[in-house]
Amino acid sequence: MKRLLVLGSLLALPAAAEEGMWTYDAFPREAVKAAHGFEPSQDWLDRVRLSSVRLAGGCSASFVSPEGLVMTNHHCIRSCVEDLSSPKRDYLATGFFAREPKDELRCPKVEANQLVEMTDVTARLQGATKGLEGAAFNTALNAEMSRIEGECATGPEWRCDVVTLFHGGRYQLYKYRRFQDVRLVFAPEFSMAAFGGDADNFNFPRYGFDAAFLRVWDTTGQPLKTDTYLPWAKEGAKEGDLVFVSGHPGGTERQSTVAELEFQREVALPYTLLHLAEMRGMLREYASGSPERWRTTRAKLRSVENSLKALRGRHQALAEPSLLAGKRQAEADLRAKVNAAPALKATTAGAWDAMARALESYRPLLASYRLKEAGDGFPSELFTLARQLVRAADELPKPNAERLREYTDGQLPGLRQQLLREAPITPELEERLLTFGFNKLRETLGADDAFVREVLGREAPEDLARALVKGTRLFDVKERKRLFEGGAAAVAASKDPMILLARRVDGLSREVRTRYEDSVESVLKKNGELLAKARLAVYGTTGYPDATFTLRLSYGMVKGWREDTKTVAPLTTFAGAYARHTGKEPFRLPDTWLKARGKVPDDTPLDVATTNDIIGGNSGSPLVDREGRVVGLIFDGNLPSLGGRYAYVPETNRAVGVHGEGLLRALEHVYGAGRLVKELREHQR
Amino acid sequence: MKRLLVLGSLLALPAAAEEGMWTYDAFPREAVKAAHGFEPSQDWLDRVRLSSVRLAGGCSASFVSPEGLVMTNHHCIRSCVEDLSSPKRDYLATGFFAREPKDELRCPKVEANQLVEMTDVTARLQGATKGLEGAAFNTALNAEMSRIEGECATGPEWRCDVVTLFHGGRYQLYKYRRFQDVRLVFAPEFSMAAFGGDADNFNFPRYGFDAAFLRVWDTTGQPLKTDTYLPWAKEGAKEGDLVFVSGHPGGTERQSTVAELEFQREVALPYTLLHLAEMRGMLREYASGSPERWRTTRAKLRSVENSLKALRGRHQALAEPSLLAGKRQAEADLRAKVNAAPALKATTAGAWDAMARALESYRPLLASYRLKEAGDGFPSELFTLARQLVRAADELPKPNAERLREYTDGQLPGLRQQLLREAPITPELEERLLTFGFNKLRETLGADDAFVREVLGREAPEDLARALVKGTRLFDVKERKRLFEGGAAAVAASKDPMILLARRVDGLSREVRTRYEDSVESVLKKNGELLAKARLAVYGTTGYPDATFTLRLSYGMVKGWREDTKTVAPLTTFAGAYARHTGKEPFRLPDTWLKARGKVPDDTPLDVATTNDIIGGNSGSPLVDREGRVVGLIFDGNLPSLGGRYAYVPETNRAVGVHGEGLLRALEHVYGAGRLVKELREHQR
Repeated sequence: MKRLLVLGSLLALPAAAEEGMWTYDAFPREAVKAAHGFEPSQDWLDRVRLSSVRLAGGCSASFVSPEGLVMTNHHCIRSCVEDLSSPKRDYLATGFFAREPKDELRCPKVEANQLVEMTDVTARLQGATKGLEGAAFNTALNAEMSRIEGECATGPEWRCDVVTLFHGGRYQLYKYRRFQDVRLVFAPEFSMAAFGGDADNFNFPRYGFDAAFLRVWDTTGQPLKTDTYLPWAKEGAKEGDLVFVSGHPGGTERQSTVAELEFQREVALPYTLLHLAEMRGMLREYASGSPERWRTTRAKLRSVENSLKALRGRHQALAEPSLLAGKRQAEADLRAKVNAAPALKATTAGAWDAMARALESYRPLLASYRLKEAGDGFPSELFTLARQLVRAADELPKPNAERLREYTDGQLPGLRQQLLREAPITPELEERLLTFGFNKLRETLGADDAFVREVLGREAPEDLARALVKGTRLFDVKERKRLFEGGAAAVAASKDPMILLARRVDGLSREVRTRYEDSVESVLKKNGELLAKARLAVYGTTGYPDATFTLRLSYGMVKGWREDTKTVAPLTTFAGAYARHTGKEPFRLPDTWLKARGKVPDDTPLDVATTNDIIGGNSGSPLVDREGRVVGLIFDGNLPSLGGRYAYVPETNRAVGVHGEGLLRALEHVYGAGRLVKELREHQR
Repeated sequence: MKRLLVLGSLLALPAAAEEGMWTYDAFPREAVKAAHGFEPSQDWLDRVRLSSVRLAGGCSASFVSPEGLVMTNHHCIRSCVEDLSSPKRDYLATGFFAREPKDELRCPKVEANQLVEMTDVTARLQGATKGLEGAAFNTALNAEMSRIEGECATGPEWRCDVVTLFHGGRYQLYKYRRFQDVRLVFAPEFSMAAFGGDADNFNFPRYGFDAAFLRVWDTTGQPLKTDTYLPWAKEGAKEGDLVFVSGHPGGTERQSTVAELEFQREVALPYTLLHLAEMRGMLREYASGSPERWRTTRAKLRSVENSLKALRGRHQALAEPSLLAGKRQAEADLRAKVNAAPALKATTAGAWDAMARALESYRPLLASYRLKEAGDGFPSELFTLARQLVRAADELPKPNAERLREYTDGQLPGLRQQLLREAPITPELEERLLTFGFNKLRETLGADDAFVREVLGREAPEDLARALVKGTRLFDVKERKRLFEGGAAAVAASKDPMILLARRVDGLSREVRTRYEDSVESVLKKNGELLAKARLAVYGTTGYPDATFTLRLSYGMVKGWREDTKTVAPLTTFAGAYARHTGKEPFRLPDTWLKARGKVPDDTPLDVATTNDIIGGNSGSPLVDREGRVVGLIFDGNLPSLGGRYAYVPETNRAVGVHGEGLLRALEHVYGAGRLVKELREHQR
């Protein structure tokens, strides 16, 4: 167990070095200039922003040619590679390269977004919820969000999201161009993308080649023309260079209250960690049963292992006494300042206690909510489809503003894409996952619980799972289309056992959701908003908002760090990768690399560590130099960066990427990806 | 997730009702008399004590006839039943009953102990460690313990343990008669013993029949004659009855400091819980692969699941803010009293900080210690045997007082029994467990760690595990005997790959052990002893010591409790068991029970809940009435009792047992165990 060193300043506002995941409209240009002698112009910012791409599934990416070529991580499109694979052509094992445009294969589940406009809508949202509490607050907030998004999304090519910044201190409307025809151009072997496997995940020195290329095709069936893209840099980044990361950090909790962090440490994280750990044990053993099982399970397994390791790192960071001590101090400081300002005190002083009470009421509810509503009791694709069909039938007839958030008009294109995707679902794995979920339901809620009885009746979990998977027709896209388009009548008439199950539990699932949203979520939101406003009032607006999977720009340097008595250098090389090769998974280089040995000079940089402040969701972000050129591809952070969820520690927090030079050379000399290399070199600067 | 209600007094000393796991020499006879109008006489206490049996593997039991008949739980002898089973005669599935004495089968791993003498040796131990710190403290303590035990154990029929009470506030020498010829008389089906499986484990109402009978045979090959035993009660226990539990609670941490409890909550328990959860996932999936896998895995699986659920309950109890708040208050009270007494202050005031610092140094060491030395990296029977052989060869030539504790003379009979037992070891399961451990080593310590390289070299975990299991000859008792008796020369000459592995890692394993013992364990012990003495000085000696798997007597009542708005009654019935039967595991009654339906009256009590203060290790304890007669058999506690590790909460903490009446009737009418029933009825009073 490597210790996650927590040092440095933990005050509420960024003090240290390169801390900060900045929105593009508030990038600290002067601070960068002062520290690094370079001030990005508005043109620079606009171009990098419009070259940035969001993958709706939870990753970042960027345009790297004017013909819609998109760079991201292999792990961001792993499920696409898997969907396109079969027992006979296993692209996850062999890698994939489309030698001709016509060979580029469409990813069934991938949606790409480009952020074209940001509008402040704080006044509208805060006006709509003024004076409201609990359920009324939530309902009004959601309704107004849906209304604003509805007005903005004038066609299926637009995606409009009201995004919450500063925990409700600010709301913005983000308008994205939406691309749903996204095709696979290049993917290396999974074993090379994830070289070192779970053992090396979040470690550094690192030798992963976690890169992939996609292409956005337009609605006329041509590669998308785009004037904003990032050219490849002619020279690679060196130690000490100033570098930027433009991407979509998924979530941080740096502004959370001490009560929220303690709740994470003592209740929420232990619950989820145990769920994931057991699922990991199950999946590994299951996958080891045959090559076919391995093929159909490895992506899910990798994702579970990644979450497990990441959340474990978070838990360890919260268990370091220094972190919470710093947070306590910051909270005490804010409280004192609030109490010293009568007007602020009147509105805000009760917020901490209200939040603590909401968390107390969440404590006995958490497992129930997670299992019944948030997916833990039904970790199955088929059930998820069934629930979506059942709920779509219920929700879509309602006015947009009254629907569950995930069924509002703005979400429909994504929902439709998910429901109607042509991607294989593995019956045996589905059976295992349902069995797992049913067992968790029963053992957590108890055999006598009403919900458990609704699910299981007198069946054993494994028998029910088998019967459901055997009996359902939801494997078939046509059947899903029929039910989706047939709406409430079609769903009500369906005898599909998975649909019947989803209907049977829907009332109780919605009930716990309502209870959670009304008594927990809305209280945390409303009071979090009060604290955010107080923070803005007391400290000013110089900070950056917690990450919310919205586009951010961070700046930093190529830089190593010290770990105990050891210095970790910021660059690894091709020679290092060959030295780490043992011939055994997960340290086995694929044949392409073994054959290419010597073609790329030994000292060519392969991976790189930087001080950029990033977090999960930034995967696939371009690493950009001061000229706005690609010098790398972010795919990970080091172990100490996992604590970055709560605090950025400049001494040790590092982003990890594939180095731009190594990336291009491997494409050329290891993979012989001539067409792709040519396209990148053509625009190289 | 049922919430573990934490209420009641949490002060350092017992205040509430039936709290207390009392040593026999300090049983609060007057308090019992005052509360229940019955004062057990010294004769009563002596007889119950000498009727109590300790199963060295970690359970309790009792003599219930003058012919050496011993009652305990099925789950306490599950591994014996498994060892005696084979694919053809699966006693775990079918149950076991020896119709004749000659059919009683010897349990290869079971050792039974009877506590015959307790002597105070506090002065000797405290004298030996006076003025010492760190490693010197530990060495002197262990050496003196081994010396005292060596003087006491004058033959293989005696087992002498120096036991630590009040965290070193008192040391006693416990002298046990040792019985190693223990034979299986009766065991029900596993599915009935564990009816409700993991889902019902630690739940109540409950319908488990977790009972088994053994017989101690003497060294002449005859059933042991014993004058001290517990006769069966003619009338069963009713709600409100006063009842006693005599047994061996394994461990509590009620006297632990706040820093120790926080360390458990934030570091130690999360680590172990995640380890167990993942292993559970692996084992369940593995066991589901074939009936033979299920047969050879279910006992291990059940044990992992039981630990997981128990530790999870502990973690939840510690995560309840009220528990630690109470502990903080108690600690502040003691600190204030210490500071007010100059002499005490001089010796003791620094103890809390010293312990907190030791825990801080344990934090980065814990996983390393657990994995390299405490078994988590090698969760395999074969490796354990190899390590024991390697270490026995190193340790036995040393003077007794200088050996590792588990190789001192007092421990040798148990060690020999373990090494030379004729019990099957399943190669495929061993392979899985070793693979699991090797993966954990690598992912936790990192692929570049020196220990990991010593274990794996450039091998993959699964390949190494396979080669080890295939190459080792340690399955064979004769080979183990040869190595054990051949000592250092034989071990040094062995080319057995498992022996070679155990030798290869022994230096680094011992190194981390030494570091742990010198910088953590000894500091906690020494300062824990100071605090214990301070507590005795400040509050007097009226308390009971934390549990340490030494014999204790608790008193309580047959009593239900309130859970939220619901009242839980203290007795369940045969009718209830039949109503819970679904026909599907784990709620499937075995055929014996289905066939016997109606033979035992519906309202006969089956399981019982009492307020006795017990904990893991008490499993198998007799439930005794004021006449000293058997009225039940403890096998579990309810969910709130899991927090009893840290505090007894009278409102909700309940012990759970098989009711004496139901037990006898089932033996007679369900199992037709005529010979056994006759033996019990003959002495019934």
